[in-house]
Amino acid sequence: MHRYRSHTCAALRKADENETVRLSGWVHRVRDHGGLLFIDLRDHYGITQVVADPDSPAFPAAEKVRGEWVVRIDGRVKVRTSETVNPNMETGDIEVYAEEIETLSAAKELPLPVFGEPDYPEDLRLRYRFLDLRRETLHANIVRRTQVIAAIRRRMGEIGFTEFSTPILTTSSPEGARDFLVPSRIHQGKFYALPQAPQQYKQLIMASGFDRYFQIAPCFRDEDPRADRLPGEFYQLDLEMSFVEQEDVLATMEPVVRDLFTEFAEGRPVTETLPRIPYAEAIRKYGTDKPDLRNPIEMQAVTEHFAGSGFKVFAGMIERDPKVEVWAIPAKTGGSRAFCDRMNSWAQGEGQPGLGYIFWREEDGAVTGAGPLAKNIGPERTETIRTQMDLEAGDACFFVAGLPAKFHEFAGDARDRVGSELELTDHERFALAWIVDFPFFEWNDDEKKVDFAHNPFSMPQGGIEALEGEEPLGIKAFQYDMVCNGYEIASGGIRNHIPELMVKAFGTVGLDETVVEERFGGLYRAFQYGAPPHGGMAAGIDRIVMLLVGARNLREITMFPMNQQAQDLLMGGPNEASVAQLAELGLRVIPKAKRED
Amino acid sequence: MHRYRSHTCAALRKADENETVRLSGWVHRVRDHGGLLFIDLRDHYGITQVVADPDSPAFPAAEKVRGEWVVRIDGRVKVRTSETVNPNMETGDIEVYAEEIETLSAAKELPLPVFGEPDYPEDLRLRYRFLDLRRETLHANIVRRTQVIAAIRRRMGEIGFTEFSTPILTTSSPEGARDFLVPSRIHQGKFYALPQAPQQYKQLIMASGFDRYFQIAPCFRDEDPRADRLPGEFYQLDLEMSFVEQEDVLATMEPVVRDLFTEFAEGRPVTETLPRIPYAEAIRKYGTDKPDLRNPIEMQAVTEHFAGSGFKVFAGMIERDPKVEVWAIPAKTGGSRAFCDRMNSWAQGEGQPGLGYIFWREEDGAVTGAGPLAKNIGPERTETIRTQMDLEAGDACFFVAGLPAKFHEFAGDARDRVGSELELTDHERFALAWIVDFPFFEWNDDEKKVDFAHNPFSMPQGGIEALEGEEPLGIKAFQYDMVCNGYEIASGGIRNHIPELMVKAFGTVGLDETVVEERFGGLYRAFQYGAPPHGGMAAGIDRIVMLLVGARNLREITMFPMNQQAQDLLMGGPNEASVAQLAELGLRVIPKAKRED
Repeated sequence: MHRYRSHTCAALRKADENETVRLSGWVHRVRDHGGLLFIDLRDHYGITQVVADPDSPAFPAAEKVRGEWVVRIDGRVKVRTSETVNPNMETGDIEVYAEEIETLSAAKELPLPVFGEPDYPEDLRLRYRFLDLRRETLHANIVRRTQVIAAIRRRMGEIGFTEFSTPILTTSSPEGARDFLVPSRIHQGKFYALPQAPQQYKQLIMASGFDRYFQIAPCFRDEDPRADRLPGEFYQLDLEMSFVEQEDVLATMEPVVRDLFTEFAEGRPVTETLPRIPYAEAIRKYGTDKPDLRNPIEMQAVTEHFAGSGFKVFAGMIERDPKVEVWAIPAKTGGSRAFCDRMNSWAQGEGQPGLGYIFWREEDGAVTGAGPLAKNIGPERTETIRTQMDLEAGDACFFVAGLPAKFHEFAGDARDRVGSELELTDHERFALAWIVDFPFFEWNDDEKKVDFAHNPFSMPQGGIEALEGEEPLGIKAFQYDMVCNGYEIASGGIRNHIPELMVKAFGTVGLDETVVEERFGGLYRAFQYGAPPHGGMAAGIDRIVMLLVGARNLREITMFPMNQQAQDLLMGGPNEASVAQLAELGLRVIPKAKRED
Repeated sequence: MHRYRSHTCAALRKADENETVRLSGWVHRVRDHGGLLFIDLRDHYGITQVVADPDSPAFPAAEKVRGEWVVRIDGRVKVRTSETVNPNMETGDIEVYAEEIETLSAAKELPLPVFGEPDYPEDLRLRYRFLDLRRETLHANIVRRTQVIAAIRRRMGEIGFTEFSTPILTTSSPEGARDFLVPSRIHQGKFYALPQAPQQYKQLIMASGFDRYFQIAPCFRDEDPRADRLPGEFYQLDLEMSFVEQEDVLATMEPVVRDLFTEFAEGRPVTETLPRIPYAEAIRKYGTDKPDLRNPIEMQAVTEHFAGSGFKVFAGMIERDPKVEVWAIPAKTGGSRAFCDRMNSWAQGEGQPGLGYIFWREEDGAVTGAGPLAKNIGPERTETIRTQMDLEAGDACFFVAGLPAKFHEFAGDARDRVGSELELTDHERFALAWIVDFPFFEWNDDEKKVDFAHNPFSMPQGGIEALEGEEPLGIKAFQYDMVCNGYEIASGGIRNHIPELMVKAFGTVGLDETVVEERFGGLYRAFQYGAPPHGGMAAGIDRIVMLLVGARNLREITMFPMNQQAQDLLMGGPNEASVAQLAELGLRVIPKAKRED
């Protein structure tokens, strides 16, 4: 027999009755039932119930073991009586009567219980991550994560993508966030950088004549930790294709992501055909470019109904500035003063002056608008609004007014709030969509200049003619996001592979060719020696896994995360370098006193 | 029709005759044959021959294009005449008569030709890596590399291994080589480190209750560059299993690696059942623990035949020191004075006093030993040696004498040399083997103390009894390597998961428990809370790919390598950090003048 096990702790069934078996695993818990000791023995695969009766030679050992000891148990399989069968356990039809127990590794008193998963402070969980990871939920999440990644690899391979690894020890490039630097020993005073994303490399791969690249790529950004971002590293599904237009990337990746979600949705519905929502429309309807489409609410402009109306606040704003708009947030089933007031209070808590509303009720067989706004604008305008928004008695509508660029975010939050408060949002599904036609440029109000709105490498729609002829802020990019349930889960674009067009685009934001050469030398050089039209995207793997397992914290889907202070509590990092190490790198740590000057 | 292509450049066949098609790709070369222009159009998938005749509207464009321009070509498929069919090309049955050519991206004059792959200086190739990567051999090597890695993933998945990613931004641990450090911004003056290998993490994964982990793991060592090591990062197939003994790891991984080699060997034979050669035997027979078993030569000790013989050099050494041995390197078909003298000269070139030999020839129907040694020791001893070594007329034998620990390496080199010079080594196969029973400790002659021979985490054979009772240098470890054609391609061991045994082992090399705690705190702590017996190994992916594609330089199988001076010539790194970046990190670069003091 094998030294440690003949079966895993998930393997035994009725058919194994009377077999002599050997199991190894962790003591999940021990119970004493009238002299009989029951040990739930756990390994990676499952749990098997072991019984030690007082006559068994294994009994003294069974009395000794404690939670999380690792033991080997030899015993005989018995089928449980029908009353004791446990249908919730894979091995619930049987139990193993122990004949011999060997302790393979004892455990000290546990700082963190595994059985039952009681709440424990996060720092303790991270310090004893090896115990934390044995807990059922986290263990299952981590396994699920690996399955999602394996499925991505399988699906990408099936459609002809090849996984290439790009360098991790690379060169600083000013792409947005802060780089992690790695001092060079051979070139003292110089630094490598960890990649924020393999953006330039994947484009270089296309310029190198490959096609259909993907990578489960580790990415690194030295940003201040916050709830939805772990310090240090994160993973993305990075991909790029040659000789493609936007439609090709969308048509290629839509089935991959949709089917991936379906594979892991455990029966929850997933959007079949992804709507393609232009950026401007998303902002208008949902207040955000990351709409939660599980929420059926769509906003509409109702400016005209307030212009010149008796509601002087809105009417005055509209009169003073032709750019002012009023947007309506319809709230089906929200037609009570109590709910409307609650929304109003929430808005004030968000720093808004308040949230105007109308609600409708049935009075004497007629649908009547109620609330201060309805009074101010009168029944006719109130009815027009009701009709436009397709509302009925028992429904409400909220209104935000001002410059859409300033209020759309708040309007989107209000839409979310209405959706969840009224339970209009169906939480048991995955609502996917493409957001397309992002603006290429945006107005930088601090510096009073035009900037790239997103990715400077994207291809502007309309090409060189647009750059030369159109108002920059009106130019759209071949750039797209995929969203799910209110989160951006992927982002991509068709790249600008034409050097003159690149120079022109940088020129529009006030940067000349030398800046392009300095910042993106490798890529800019490559484009001058025959570059294919290409495009791709990158999907956030951590976010996708979180959505699929329903986790609310990245630490629930990451094996060995740092804590919120960017410390590795398990290994004890970061830590001080030795004098010799610093000397080799030609570096000196600025003394603390000096730093605080 | 698609904007860029209806087919790839590898797709068209006879059956597509008369189809109107659209292709996009790089101009591989242009030839002018009596007015007709032939363009070999290349993409990632293959090459298609395009013809532009002078009457075609595409002709003016065809006259303009140059090597490595990216073009779209519309045209009609024609089947070639039987004389012009090219059986070496997948698309060799057809050609495409161009009707329209659009330049998608022109190319400046090439600093590095793609067609024909002429030799070019490495730094130029790295600077223009995007051109270099378009070359047939490198392109194919990189694709092959990705296929090997995908096959590893597939095979590991098939036998129940799960791929887990371990952190890349982690904590310095003194495991051997020099760490790359990453300064922390949030904890100024402290540093993260890039992992030299996920050794501690994979053991923690086992202690966390998972089973059968693997990873295609990026590893980082800041070592001085040398021919067989790229600066920076390398990849290993890292794996670990719980509840296993050495035999389990070997039996699990042997088919994976063997079948992987077979999959990519292109018909070259691969060892079916891997011999398991104890370390001591490998040293005795092959002079090395990385024997090239394509070479049939096995050395033997022939000390007794020289003891008290007329060859006073050896006889004297043997008499003075009972540890002195004489090893014989048989050289089938090497029986000529010219060859033996050439080997002797080679040995002198290697810094040896010379290489003694005997060669045998047939004289008057009798096999007779010749050469100075044969003369000195006389015909009887000469004949005994011939019989022992199973040699015949026409063969030779070389001899090295001294302390095996000092000469075995040279003896191994001599064995290699004889094998290749006499063409005894069959280069067209993959000879795999396990080397087992490595010594746990070794003698550190500099510090006059016992040290760990390899991995301090390995389990000593014999356990605590051996550590307490046996002479340390005689203790073996459950540690093993896999070798192929003279290279170590994998290394692993059964781990020491018992804290007391760990402390004992460290004690033997003069380190106490506090050192274990300091250096390997996370792991040492984990072992105190129920750790399973576990073991695994790590295989060098770069080396395996090199063997499979027959590359002699790591840069031939790496997409974006640094140069030998650890510079990224494509991106221009490492480079200087800004004053702001350094201030954020609390670091100062020591000025050059100061460093040179």
